[in-house]
Amino acid sequence: MGDFNRSVILEAIRRAGDGLSRTELAGATGLSAQTITNITRRLLDDQFIEEAGRTIQGPGKPRTTLRLKATSRVSIGVHLDPAMLTFVLLDLTGAVVARTARRMPADDARRIIAAAAAEIEELIADSGIDREAITGIGVATPGPLDPARGTVIDPPKLHSWHRVPLRAALAEATGLRVMLEKDTTAAAVAELWTGDHPPDGSFLLVYLGIGIGTALVMDGDVVRGASHNAGEVGHIIVDPDGPECACGQRGCVEVVCTPQAVVERAERAGVFADDRLGSDAGSVDARFTDLCDKAAAGDHMAISVLEGSAQHFAVLISALTNMLDVDCVVLGGPFWSRLSSLFLAQLPHLLERQSATRAVRDLPVRGAVVGDDVGAVGAGCVVLDEVLSPRAAALFLDS
Amino acid sequence: MGDFNRSVILEAIRRAGDGLSRTELAGATGLSAQTITNITRRLLDDQFIEEAGRTIQGPGKPRTTLRLKATSRVSIGVHLDPAMLTFVLLDLTGAVVARTARRMPADDARRIIAAAAAEIEELIADSGIDREAITGIGVATPGPLDPARGTVIDPPKLHSWHRVPLRAALAEATGLRVMLEKDTTAAAVAELWTGDHPPDGSFLLVYLGIGIGTALVMDGDVVRGASHNAGEVGHIIVDPDGPECACGQRGCVEVVCTPQAVVERAERAGVFADDRLGSDAGSVDARFTDLCDKAAAGDHMAISVLEGSAQHFAVLISALTNMLDVDCVVLGGPFWSRLSSLFLAQLPHLLERQSATRAVRDLPVRGAVVGDDVGAVGAGCVVLDEVLSPRAAALFLDS
Repeated sequence: MGDFNRSVILEAIRRAGDGLSRTELAGATGLSAQTITNITRRLLDDQFIEEAGRTIQGPGKPRTTLRLKATSRVSIGVHLDPAMLTFVLLDLTGAVVARTARRMPADDARRIIAAAAAEIEELIADSGIDREAITGIGVATPGPLDPARGTVIDPPKLHSWHRVPLRAALAEATGLRVMLEKDTTAAAVAELWTGDHPPDGSFLLVYLGIGIGTALVMDGDVVRGASHNAGEVGHIIVDPDGPECACGQRGCVEVVCTPQAVVERAERAGVFADDRLGSDAGSVDARFTDLCDKAAAGDHMAISVLEGSAQHFAVLISALTNMLDVDCVVLGGPFWSRLSSLFLAQLPHLLERQSATRAVRDLPVRGAVVGDDVGAVGAGCVVLDEVLSPRAAALFLDS
Repeated sequence: MGDFNRSVILEAIRRAGDGLSRTELAGATGLSAQTITNITRRLLDDQFIEEAGRTIQGPGKPRTTLRLKATSRVSIGVHLDPAMLTFVLLDLTGAVVARTARRMPADDARRIIAAAAAEIEELIADSGIDREAITGIGVATPGPLDPARGTVIDPPKLHSWHRVPLRAALAEATGLRVMLEKDTTAAAVAELWTGDHPPDGSFLLVYLGIGIGTALVMDGDVVRGASHNAGEVGHIIVDPDGPECACGQRGCVEVVCTPQAVVERAERAGVFADDRLGSDAGSVDARFTDLCDKAAAGDHMAISVLEGSAQHFAVLISALTNMLDVDCVVLGGPFWSRLSSLFLAQLPHLLERQSATRAVRDLPVRGAVVGDDVGAVGAGCVVLDEVLSPRAAALFLDS
C-alpha cells in the first residue's frame, strides 16, 4: 500500500505542474494528512520533490508548495527506427531537456549500437547533467520483441539484425540500465504523459511509422499483453483488391497502409515525374514528404492517393474500435504530422459510417500531443514511469 | 474498502466450492483475522453464507467451514437468440437449478416479451424457489445495445424489433429488476465463473451464434467498452474473395463466418441433396447440424466446407490475438459444440502460422466450459456478479 500511495502522490504532484501544497494533496488523493506528511518527507529526503515557496491563503499557516525536482533524475529515450535514430533526454517531469537525431547508419547491428552509444554519450556530455542522475535508457523499436532476451524479433529493413541482444549490448556499451519497448507502446506512454486523458479512460493509438502499428490504453494504462507485444496489426485485411502479402493473404495493412505501399501507389498513379532514388527507408521517407507536399499544393492525383489511404486506415481503425469500444482514437508517429490535416478532415466521417455504435455514441479522433519524436519521448517516459511508480519490470532490465 | 474486502471474501468462498474456514480465508485473502471476523459475521447475518460443519486440524479450536448459502439468493438468466429462447435459474454459486427453452415465437417484440415473461413465471413456480430470493433477471441478446435506453439496436432476424425498450418491458411484465447484456459479454462472464482462469489473466472469447461476436477479458474482468458494446467484429474482412457485404466491403465475418454463410456455401458446394425449408434462424440452425453431422460421418465435401470455415475463423482470431496478445483463446456459443472437434483440430496450427509472436510464445486454444446455454448462464452470472460485488451498474437496471 505504501508504494501505491507514494505513486499516487507523485502522480498528483506531476499532473499539477506548478506543484501542490500538502493540504491540496490530501484533497486530491483522499489520503490522510499523516500519510501525506510521512510520504512527502521521504520524497523530499530522496530529492524526488522539492519545496517551491509558500502561499498564504486566508488565516492559518502559509502552505508550502511541493513540486517535482525536475533534474534530480533524468532518463534517456531512444527511438531506433529504420529511417532514423532519435535521442532525447527527459527530466523527471517528462520535459525534453536535450534532443539529437541522425540517419540510421548502414545495415549492421554492431555499428548501429555503437553509433547509438556514442550519441548517448554526447547527449549526456552536452547537457551538463550529472551522470548519477540518469536513471536509465528506454529504447523504442518496431515490434515484435522477445522480452525475455531483450531482442527485436524481425526488425523491418534491418536484415542483418538477427538475434541481436539489443538491450544487453546497449547496457554494456553505456554502463546504464536499458528498457526495451515497442515503438507503438512507447508512443501511447508518451500520450498518457502529455495528453489530457481521464485517469480511467481508454484510447486506441494508431502509429504511423515505416511500419503501421497500434497501442491500446484501457483504464488509463497501456495494454502490453501476455508477451509484451500487443498492437501488431500488420496483417489485418483492409483492401480485398489490394496486393498479395508475404503472409499469403491479400490486401493486408503491411502492403496497403505503410508509407512504402502508399508511395508505390502514388508512383503507379503517375504522381511523380522522376524515379525514386532508392528503396531504403530514407528514400521512402523523402518520397512520402514529396507526396504530402504535392497534396497540400492541390495536386489532385496526390490528394486522391492520400484519400484512398485514409479509407484504408478507416477500415483498420473501425475494425479495432468496433471490437474495443474505446473512448477515442489518437493518431501519431513519425509520419503523422505530414498526414494530419488531410486525415483529420477525412477519418471522423469515415469511421462514423463504419461504427457499430453510431446510434449511441460519437468516436472522437485526434492527433497525438507529441509529434515526430513520440517514440523517443515515450521510451524516456517508460523509464520515468518505472522510477516514479516501480513495478515488476525486472524482465526488461539489463545493466 | 469495506465493499472491496467483502467481495474478496465472497469470491474466495465461492471459488473454494466446499467452503473455507476463517483461518483459511485469512490465508487466502491476506486480510486480518479481525476483518475476516467482522465481514463474515455480517455475511452470515445477511444469509449470503452459512456455517457448514466443523473440522478438527491438530490442537486448538475446531474450525468452522463457511460456504455460500446457495439458495439464499438466485438469479434468472435469459438468452434471447434469434433461433431460441433459453431460460436458466442459477443459485448463488452459479449452479443451474432449473432450465427451460423454447423456439422463438413469431417476429413480434410484444409477443416475444410476453412469452419470455410467461416462461420465467413457470420456471419460478416449478423450481419452488421463494420469489423473494430472486435478485434479478439477466438478459443476453445480440449486440449492439443502447445501454441508456435498455434496447437492442438492430436485432438480427427480428425486423419488427425497433426501439423496443426490452429492459423496461420485461421488468414491467415480471416485476423483477432486469439487466441487459450482450450475449458475447455474457458468455465471457460465464467462462470467468466456471473456467479455470488466473485472476489477472486475459482471453479472447469467440462466440459462435447466429451472429459471430467476441468478448475480451483482461486482468480477469470482461472489457465492456465505453458504450458497453465491445466485441463487435462482424465487419472485419476475412476473405478477400468472399461475397459482397451490405456494409460496402467484401468478405466480412458477417457474410463469411456466420452459420447462414457457411450453410449457403455448403449448399452451393452440393453437400445437400434437398433444398432448405426456410430462411429463418431455425432452418439455418437445423441445416448447420446436418452439415456438421455429414462432416462427422466422413463426407469430404462437408469436411472441406468446415475446414474452409476454420481458416476464415483463423484469419479473424489471429487479427485480434496479434492485436491483443491475450493469454489464450476460448471458443463458445450455441453453435460451438457442433464444430468443436474439427475446429480444435485445425485452429491451433492455423493460428500458430499467423501469430506475430510465434517465436516467443504459444497461444492455447480451448472450448468454453459452459455449452450451448452459455448465453443464458452468463446472463444469470451477470446478475450474481452484481449481488456479490456491487458496482455502478445503475445504468443497466430497471425494476
